[in-house]
Formats: sequence, structure tokens, C-alpha cells
Amino acid sequence: MDQKQHEYWMQRAIDLSIQNVDRGGGPFGAVIVKDGQLIAEGYNQVTLLNDPTMHAEVSAIREACKKLNTFDLSGCVIYTSCEPCPMCLGAIYWARISEMYFANTKQDADSIGFSDEFIYKELAKPYSQRSLKTYQLMREKALAAFEKWRLKEDKIEY
Amino acid sequence: MDQKQHEYWMQRAIDLSIQNVDRGGGPFGAVIVKDGQLIAEGYNQVTLLNDPTMHAEVSAIREACKKLNTFDLSGCVIYTSCEPCPMCLGAIYWARISEMYFANTKQDADSIGFSDEFIYKELAKPYSQRSLKTYQLMREKALAAFEKWRLKEDKIEY
Repeated sequence: MDQKQHEYWMQRAIDLSIQNVDRGGGPFGAVIVKDGQLIAEGYNQVTLLNDPTMHAEVSAIREACKKLNTFDLSGCVIYTSCEPCPMCLGAIYWARISEMYFANTKQDADSIGFSDEFIYKELAKPYSQRSLKTYQLMREKALAAFEKWRLKEDKIEY
Repeated sequence: MDQKQHEYWMQRAIDLSIQNVDRGGGPFGAVIVKDGQLIAEGYNQVTLLNDPTMHAEVSAIREACKKLNTFDLSGCVIYTSCEPCPMCLGAIYWARISEMYFANTKQDADSIGFSDEFIYKELAKPYSQRSLKTYQLMREKALAAFEKWRLKEDKIEY
């Protein structure tokens, strides 16, 4: 795709982010495109749906997977109005999206009160220094599930 | 809660992870508990639902928020059979869960073919060195949504 097309899709993501403020949601929008065709749109629905995972990117990924009937979005491009938080960037990797364009940065999000940058910093810390109290227990018992998975012959890997 | 209670809930998360392999899903389970009561259970449903975001923790968080009718799980504890990936750990932070217990590690997950550790490493790299091709564009235009949010008087912050 040429630069004009990238700008066209990013403008769509930005439009969604602006419209969402009127709707009462956070100022974030995203679109997923494949082979020059729009596959899905998403916008922040955390407070609208009482679902803290419904960021614009996660919402677009869920919609795209439903539409394409797959958990694998290889070959898709995501345009998001803001640099994704760790949750959304993780989701982008799990969905195997091939390319990402973003506009606002996590520092911009921070400056209007969103925790994106804080969460990036937390993830980079050792457990003992995180604000989330974190403990490990019963690894030996839990490994049984992994062993069962390893031995399963008809598993669907992803 | 005393150690026995933590072990009780972790055993439940481990049981869910083992059962899920029989169900055809990934070997991961999670439970969310508040004030000693079970609020929600989750298990990996990526391939079952064609939704790459439906890891055990995300699935438990969505269920807990539905049940408690809120996007804020402050005071809740999550027990997960495996150390969360960046997506799930981000979701745990966004949901404001207060405490986390995990059993298997991301290295254990890596050893049976899951990308958790790979994604952690990717997030720590600068954009130019990531496997996900990443570009920034149109920040000036996207800031309009943030400015609109900043000025909105009746917004629901989270």
C-alpha cells in the first residue's frame, strides 16, 4: 500500500476515536485491513460494556476474527489511533497481525490520565517491585496440564 | 487468607487447566476470588471460539466484570495456572486486580510451544527491532481526540 492509503485508514481510526468520546467511551479507535479491504473497526468500550479488556485494538481483533472465522490474522494490518498498551500489543502478537500503524503515543495517553505507560513500566520490573502483589505456588502440580498438552496428539496449536 | 486457602483456589485453577486439554483448548485455567468467595472461572478458549484474546485470565476477568457489573475488580485475587502473558497481565492491571498467584512460568509455557516469553522479549525491544513491523503516523491529527477527552466534563474515567 502507498502512503495515501495508510493515511486513509489511519484517518478512519482517528475518526472512530473522536466519535467515541461523544459516545461516552475513551478516545481510542482502531481498524483492521487486509488486502486493501476493511475487515473490522473497534473503539474503546470499557465503560460502555463494563469490560476492562475492550480497548479499541482488542475490540477490532475480536471483530476481525469473528468475520474471518479464524484466530489467525496473518496478513492483516492494524491502524490504531494510539500506541497500544501491553494488553493490546500482546493481543496483536497473539493474533499474528503483520503490520501496525499508530498515531498518539503512550506518553500522550499518560498525559490525559490513562495508565498505558505505567503498565509498560510495571511489566519491566521484577515481581517483588510491582504494585500488583505477585506470588508463585504449586508449579509442580500445574505442570501436569502442560505434560498432558505435550502428549496430546490431536491438539490445535496456535 | 491463609496458605491453605490459596492452595485450594490454585488447585481449582489447575483443575480447569487440565480439564481444558480434554475440551480441546490450551492447558490454562484461572479463577477470580473476592472476600473468600469464587467470583469467576476462566480457561483458554482461543481455538474453541476463534478469539486470540480469550486466554484463561482474560476470560475470567470478563466473566467477573459481568457478574459484579463493573470494570473495576479492586479487592479481587486472581489464581492462574500459568504466569500471565503481557496481554493478560495488562488486563489484570486494567481491571485493578489486587493480588495474583501463578503456578507454571512463562519458560514452562515456552517449552510446550506457547509464545509468552517471546512476546515479553518483543515488548522490551525498540520498534525497529521487533518482528511486528511498526510505524507512526498522523499524531497531530489524532491528538484532537485526546484534547476532546481532556475537555469533556462528564467523562467516566478509569
